[in-house]
This record gives sequence, C-alpha cells and structure tokens, in this order.
Amino acid sequence: MSIPIRALSNVSYDPDIGYLELKGAEKTRTLTANTVKTFAQSLRVMALSKELKKSNDLATKREAYYVSKNWGDARFSEQPESDNVIDDLEAMFRVNREALGFIPEEKGGAVSGRLIVIDTDPNTGKDIRINCSKMGTGAYSIPNSVENLRFETEAKFILAIETSGMHQRLVKHGYWKKANCILISLGGVPTRACRRFIRRLSDVANIPVYGFVDGDMYGWANIYRTLKVGSGNAAHINKFFCVPHARLFGITTDDIKKYELPTHPLTEVDIKRGNDALKNDPFIRLHPAWQKNIKDLIKMKKRAEQQALAKHGLNYVIERYLPDKLKNPSTWLP
Amino acid sequence: MSIPIRALSNVSYDPDIGYLELKGAEKTRTLTANTVKTFAQSLRVMALSKELKKSNDLATKREAYYVSKNWGDARFSEQPESDNVIDDLEAMFRVNREALGFIPEEKGGAVSGRLIVIDTDPNTGKDIRINCSKMGTGAYSIPNSVENLRFETEAKFILAIETSGMHQRLVKHGYWKKANCILISLGGVPTRACRRFIRRLSDVANIPVYGFVDGDMYGWANIYRTLKVGSGNAAHINKFFCVPHARLFGITTDDIKKYELPTHPLTEVDIKRGNDALKNDPFIRLHPAWQKNIKDLIKMKKRAEQQALAKHGLNYVIERYLPDKLKNPSTWLP
Repeated sequence: MSIPIRALSNVSYDPDIGYLELKGAEKTRTLTANTVKTFAQSLRVMALSKELKKSNDLATKREAYYVSKNWGDARFSEQPESDNVIDDLEAMFRVNREALGFIPEEKGGAVSGRLIVIDTDPNTGKDIRINCSKMGTGAYSIPNSVENLRFETEAKFILAIETSGMHQRLVKHGYWKKANCILISLGGVPTRACRRFIRRLSDVANIPVYGFVDGDMYGWANIYRTLKVGSGNAAHINKFFCVPHARLFGITTDDIKKYELPTHPLTEVDIKRGNDALKNDPFIRLHPAWQKNIKDLIKMKKRAEQQALAKHGLNYVIERYLPDKLKNPSTWLP
Repeated sequence: MSIPIRALSNVSYDPDIGYLELKGAEKTRTLTANTVKTFAQSLRVMALSKELKKSNDLATKREAYYVSKNWGDARFSEQPESDNVIDDLEAMFRVNREALGFIPEEKGGAVSGRLIVIDTDPNTGKDIRINCSKMGTGAYSIPNSVENLRFETEAKFILAIETSGMHQRLVKHGYWKKANCILISLGGVPTRACRRFIRRLSDVANIPVYGFVDGDMYGWANIYRTLKVGSGNAAHINKFFCVPHARLFGITTDDIKKYELPTHPLTEVDIKRGNDALKNDPFIRLHPAWQKNIKDLIKMKKRAEQQALAKHGLNYVIERYLPDKLKNPSTWLP
C-alpha cells in the first residue's frame, strides 16, 4: 500500500489552485512481521467502508473505532489509531472520508434564505425538497454528510457569518430577502460538513462566498482562512473542503477606523498569533493586503467584534454596513 | 428597585417543584450618589427592552452592551456589567430575559421527527409551518428565541441526544418513524434556547423527555442534570428552562455491565466530580438511584460513551438498546 505523507513538509501552496496541496512524497505499508497488525487493520477498515457503502449506511470515526472491538486481535486499542488508518485511506484513495462512509462526529452550520436543498428521504428513498426560505426564525441544520445533497437557488451570494447572534438578526429582519442571498451561520470555526456544504453549494450555484467575522486574529486566521484554504495538518483533503473564491467583507482593520467601532485591547496571544501568521502562514505571506491588515491591527493594539456595529443602532449592519460592503469590493480582503 | 439575590445561599430544592428555586432574600438598589450610574443604566436597559418589544426586535446581550456605547456617561465599560444588569432585570420581573427581548449569543439544538413547528414568517408576518419530518438527513435548527413558537405533534416522546453523530444515525435509519418520537441533538451541554424549546414542547404536547448521553459524569451532571433541573448560578430562571419530568435512558453504570460496553478509564477529574456531586449536589443527594449509579462508576473506575454500543453492530442501538429501554422503565434514572 502506498500512502501520501501527510505533513507540512509535503505541502505546497499555489494561489491558482487555491488550497494547501500535497506534494508527491509517499510512504509504503508492506506486509512484514512488524506491520501485520496495521496491515490487517487497514484491510478491515476498507472492508467496513465497502459494507457501509453497500448498505447505504454511515459511521462516525468513533463508531468505527468501537466496531473494531469485535475484530479480535485486529481491534484498535485507542481511537487515534483507527482515526489514523481512516486518514491514510482517504489520502490513499484521494477522496474525502465522507465518500468512504465515515462521517465526522460534529456537524454545525445553520442555513437560511433563498435556497432549496434536495436530499433523499431516509424513510421513503424519494427526493425531498427542503426550502431554507421557509424556516421562520429558525434555520436548516446541515447534516454530518452532505455528499448527496443537490441545490436549487437564484441567490446572488452566500454570506458566511461567524456568530449565531448576527445570523439571527439578519434572519429576523429578512436581510436575505432584501439582498437576495443565502445566510450561513458558521458557529465559530466551521466544521468539515459546513465547509463542504458551502464549497459544493457555491460550485453548483456558481455564486461568490463572503465572510463576515470578528475583526481579530481568531476570526481571520482560524475561521475565515480555514473556510477559504483549509488547514495545514489536513492537506490531503483541503481540496474538498476549501472555498478558494471566498472573500472577506470584514470586520477589517480599516472598518474599525472607518466605522469608529468600540474595541477590546489585543492580548499577548493575539499579537503572537498575528506575528506568527505574518512569518509562517503561506496564505497570508502571499497576500500583501492581508499582511497590511494584520500589521495595522498589531499597531492599533485593538480588535473589534462584528456586533460592535450595534453602537450605531441595532440594524445599522443591515441598513448601512452590508450594503456599503456589497458596493465597494475595494474594501474586501482576499 | 428590589432585586432578588442570585446566589446558592438563596436557593432551595423541592423535588415536587423540580428545579433549584430562589428563596426570598432581596437586595435594594436605591438612588444615591454612589448608585446613580447603575441606577441610570438599569433604567436605560429597561427602556431598550421596551423599544425592542415595541419594534418586535431582539438583541443579544453583546449587542445590548454595544448599544450602550451611545449612552454617554451611562455607557457600560465592560460586557459583564451590562450582562449583570440584564440578569437583575430578569430576576426583578420574574421572567426569562428572552421575554424582555434579550436573546443569547449561542443557539444549538437540531430537531428531527414527528413535529410541526409553527413560527411567524419574519418577512410576511404570517404563520409558517415547519415540518421536522421533512428535513431529509438534515434537521431543523432551533432559533435563539423560542418564546413565540407553537407546536403540533402526535409523537409519544422526545429523545434528547448528547452527540450529533448518534442523532445522525437515528435520523438516517428513520428511528423517529419506527418509535413515533422527536429526536433532538443537544450538541453537548444544551443551550438556553435548546432547553427552553424542549421544556415548552414537552409541556404543550404533554409527552415525556428521555435523555440519552454518555455514561460519565459530564454526560450525567453537566448535560442531563442541567437539562432537567437547571444550574446553581442561574437559579432565578431555572423555572423557565428546567425539564422536571425528564428521565435518563442511559448510558447508566448498569448498562456498561449488562451490554459489556468498551470503556475508558476514569480520570482523577471524573472521580473528583463524582465525589463532589455525591456530597454537594442537592439533586443527586435527593435521589438514591443516582447516588448508587455514581458510586458504582467510581468503584468500576470506568466510563462508556453512547457510541460504544456500536461494538455489537452499528444499528444495535436502534434494534436492541432503545427498544429495551422503552420497555423497561426500571432501568431508567430519575
């Protein structure tokens, strides 16, 4: 078995491709006295994947670990061992593990607005149409696996929002109807299911994705950057999860000045994270606009949350900020 | 202004009432040179609440804090100050703050199964019917404020599930259809919105709530107990958020033995938390069955996750465990 090496040393970044990408290095797993257990386990997990696909079932990584408890000597003693075999398989087959039937433990992501999701009804096997504009003040909750979903939409863009509170405000005041868009609450760092959903939806509908997060290193580097180009330690699957055509509306450092937003002081950790990103992050290093934005924030020693716009009135974000942003692409970050 | 003192010293527990309840002690906020700012802020927040109700709007606690930045000298300098005033107001008016227009930052809770939620469409002002049995493999995501929702259901019970992975399995295999129930994924410790939703739904529909969480102190004391009787430091609102008629299906210590589940060793923290609960938690101290369950777990020095049932096959939970539980109330915990 030949398996790509999953590590930063085996990764490159090309903005035309849009995500942190595996280079060619591989490791080989051959059958010897030393590797017989891992070899047997890899085959067992492949057989489990085949079984899942055949029976149209799914298993979380944790369930897969517990299933192995009935494999006699081939059972895993700790979950990181089985997780590692599953990660190897997805790298080997060059597909994301959801396509092999292994779904993540966590989901996350709530969707409102001009979108119809077409899913298969688990009870009848027939198509089922879910209208995300008919959820009242609630939303459609993205399932753990989104591979089989289809989409119908006339929306002009997707707005990916950091906090559920901001999402709720935009839903409550029908922003998606005025702006003809789809609102997705990320709920912090987006899960795999949420990222894959946004990626597939934006591909199929061919519409842009705009990020709307807090004006701090966590909102920019942990939330937005993970959404856009993926993460370093999961390079073999970034291809499926990245949203390369995403752009950031804000909150930018310029927004903090322009809208005179109330701020919080930067912590030492924020400053360290900013300097690290400037030095080591291949995505940041490729975009001068991002470098300037982060340097300015460190100079100001301040950060601002997306809710800070409420200083000018609760619905200022709907009446002024978002319309301003839509009209002025020069204020976006890449 | 007379405001109840919100502290454990001013709390009692009566199982017939079903939640940690405020006793009579109050503090008085009078207008003096020292209290003028807090007094003014309390009045300002009351005025904001009135404005929110009048304009049919909502504000998160964080938004309320930022709104105050335009109040001149009455502005809050840190969010904990404004949070505290809002908490005082909900204690003073004896209502939950959602009823005053202040909604939590976080939501959470995904609903599938035999339930129609009736909400008001924010765009048209008309009733909108959301059918939670027509969400495919996805779910209905509970909004931040659930006060105005109405419900229609013929379901026999609500199953409150700790992990989204287990919820996804039960949805995928149509368990709610077989068992005629409503499935709610808590996603860890349930949020206020999720607890209030379960409370209101179970009251209106007059159906029982069964908890299905990991067999450990976190699943029992942090997740299930918070759902059932609320928490100590929010005693003035437990009344609105508790689900006193909830029962725990499992995973119980007896389940770990009976189903021979794969386990993890208890950590020192688990053991300490168990001993603390036995000594100090008024809810645990009132129920001998809970004390026995926790003592047995500490003796076994083991804990088990709900996914551990997968040892006997991925759908053992649907085919055996849950039907067994439904038939045998003697295996439930109070």
